[in-house]
Amino acid sequence: MQTVSDFSEAELIERIRQHLPPPPDWLVVGIGDDAAVVAPARNRLEVLTVDAIVEGVHFDRRFTPPGAIGHRALAVNLSDLAAMGAEPRLALLSMALPSDLASEDFNQMIGGLAALARQHRVHVVGGNLTRSPGPLMIDVTLSGMVKTRQVLTRGGARPGDHLYLTGSIGAAAAGLQMLQSSETPAADDARRREACVVRYLFPEPRTRVGLLLGRNRAATACVDLSDGLADAARRIAEASGVGVAIDADAVPIEPDALKWFAGREAEPLSAAMSGGDDYELLFAVRPRTRKRLAAALRHGKAPITRIGLCTDDGAVVVHRGPARESVSGGYTHFR
Amino acid sequence: MQTVSDFSEAELIERIRQHLPPPPDWLVVGIGDDAAVVAPARNRLEVLTVDAIVEGVHFDRRFTPPGAIGHRALAVNLSDLAAMGAEPRLALLSMALPSDLASEDFNQMIGGLAALARQHRVHVVGGNLTRSPGPLMIDVTLSGMVKTRQVLTRGGARPGDHLYLTGSIGAAAAGLQMLQSSETPAADDARRREACVVRYLFPEPRTRVGLLLGRNRAATACVDLSDGLADAARRIAEASGVGVAIDADAVPIEPDALKWFAGREAEPLSAAMSGGDDYELLFAVRPRTRKRLAAALRHGKAPITRIGLCTDDGAVVVHRGPARESVSGGYTHFR
Repeated sequence: MQTVSDFSEAELIERIRQHLPPPPDWLVVGIGDDAAVVAPARNRLEVLTVDAIVEGVHFDRRFTPPGAIGHRALAVNLSDLAAMGAEPRLALLSMALPSDLASEDFNQMIGGLAALARQHRVHVVGGNLTRSPGPLMIDVTLSGMVKTRQVLTRGGARPGDHLYLTGSIGAAAAGLQMLQSSETPAADDARRREACVVRYLFPEPRTRVGLLLGRNRAATACVDLSDGLADAARRIAEASGVGVAIDADAVPIEPDALKWFAGREAEPLSAAMSGGDDYELLFAVRPRTRKRLAAALRHGKAPITRIGLCTDDGAVVVHRGPARESVSGGYTHFR
Repeated sequence: MQTVSDFSEAELIERIRQHLPPPPDWLVVGIGDDAAVVAPARNRLEVLTVDAIVEGVHFDRRFTPPGAIGHRALAVNLSDLAAMGAEPRLALLSMALPSDLASEDFNQMIGGLAALARQHRVHVVGGNLTRSPGPLMIDVTLSGMVKTRQVLTRGGARPGDHLYLTGSIGAAAAGLQMLQSSETPAADDARRREACVVRYLFPEPRTRVGLLLGRNRAATACVDLSDGLADAARRIAEASGVGVAIDADAVPIEPDALKWFAGREAEPLSAAMSGGDDYELLFAVRPRTRKRLAAALRHGKAPITRIGLCTDDGAVVVHRGPARESVSGGYTHFR
């Protein structure tokens, strides 16, 4: 088996290049010089984010196919830009590769990233390759464009705003648990299992919804769910200086995930809300301008569900029938 | 001893923020949202680069102080922008931290990076923090600005162009060897040792020279020396489709390094040319426009030495008296 250490840096870069479409006209200097040179987008602000995925922290190479690793590295960044209402444009790709990484796995990783890049019209303009004496790490920097008055931040929600969620939650967390578990699924569970696993492995960032929310100035605040719904709700509350009340019955939990959690005596709503890896958007909408949501509902390519309300008491809570529970949990990286 | 795992991600981000100057007016949304939002520079192209430094590959924590690690993470990127003739503007900082990293070391690392950022007028606008189950890794994305006709690439050199080098080479490679060696230096060697070690630990990117070369359209090609002079010469040769002939006697090797290499029976020129970590610039100048070099010579804050010539035979060679040797060596990351 050939590994990446059988190739020079130049040869690996050439492989990446082969996965890329022809350079766009705004790219003045592309891969192969000391840096990339690009013409800025006219009349747009630039939106910049960087996110790393690290083997052993964000993915496990034993059950994550290389294509899914590449997909994830870009998806987590696309999700951040979606939450800002920005249109993605270009990416820089920095990889630290263990020397025993099979070169075919490297190929598939780049393939997975390049496929998602094409789908979201992102061009890879440069990057860096280095050896890693430890885990595989991929760091993607993503740059996008947004008009001045269409930027979505976390900080604009006011008491009385409604909270909406794209898609559904829980599938990714359940999918990850399924991959980690050694159980052999019963035949009728295999399809359900498959659906959650795919949601975990190939998250679909909500680029289209984010763009439509920004363009129509439909949302007063927006955040993505990379670290779970509970965490996202707290972030909007903190940045906007509001409380958040989520209606437990309204939260769309993926039915296949619900069944999985219930079978393991986990409390499904807590499990779904604290599970990471759902790259959905949580956003606030002022009730009197809710008609501006029409375009996102019609063309956003994702269901949108109202799940709660911004309040003036500063607390982040879930209403479950007559009960009111404080929201805790969510994935934190350090402690 | 407190480690980074005693702190939340938010607390570590707050520590980073404390090292930063007040946000510049072009920064619309800074640290703390899903992404940073910046107003583009008027009438400038954007120059983007990313470079990672990985513990065990690019530095050794046993003898590299944390401040020097932070310095290096930014310096390698500043050097890339200098080689493009660009003025640095903003950085994104992505770190993967081992959980046993002392929080004081984290502080000093950020301090080292922030000090160099201030010196080169770079603002850190965002980033990412994650845990690393293996080595410490810092990935910096740097964005800068350049006017359309002032971009320096590697590809514009023609046969007959003269080759120039900023500063001197060898000090960083010697400094690294000194740190790695267990020899106790004699008293009169201590100062010499100190000078090389500082050059290794705190490389000074040639931002000013690069800018002046671009502004005055003084160079036809330019590259930085991150992987050594031999490698840099080959890159200009390849990208420009020329040969390169370097005059051995003209290459400025740091005298302290020369003495170190000679004492170890290493051939000093080879050792200096193939050693990495000299963040100097190698550039080509058309002889009839060499007066354009005046500003870089006067205000570039670095000596500039003519060390060779671009030729039409495609070979990259060193002339040493009557002998002509092919250039090999240079640091490669994979094989």
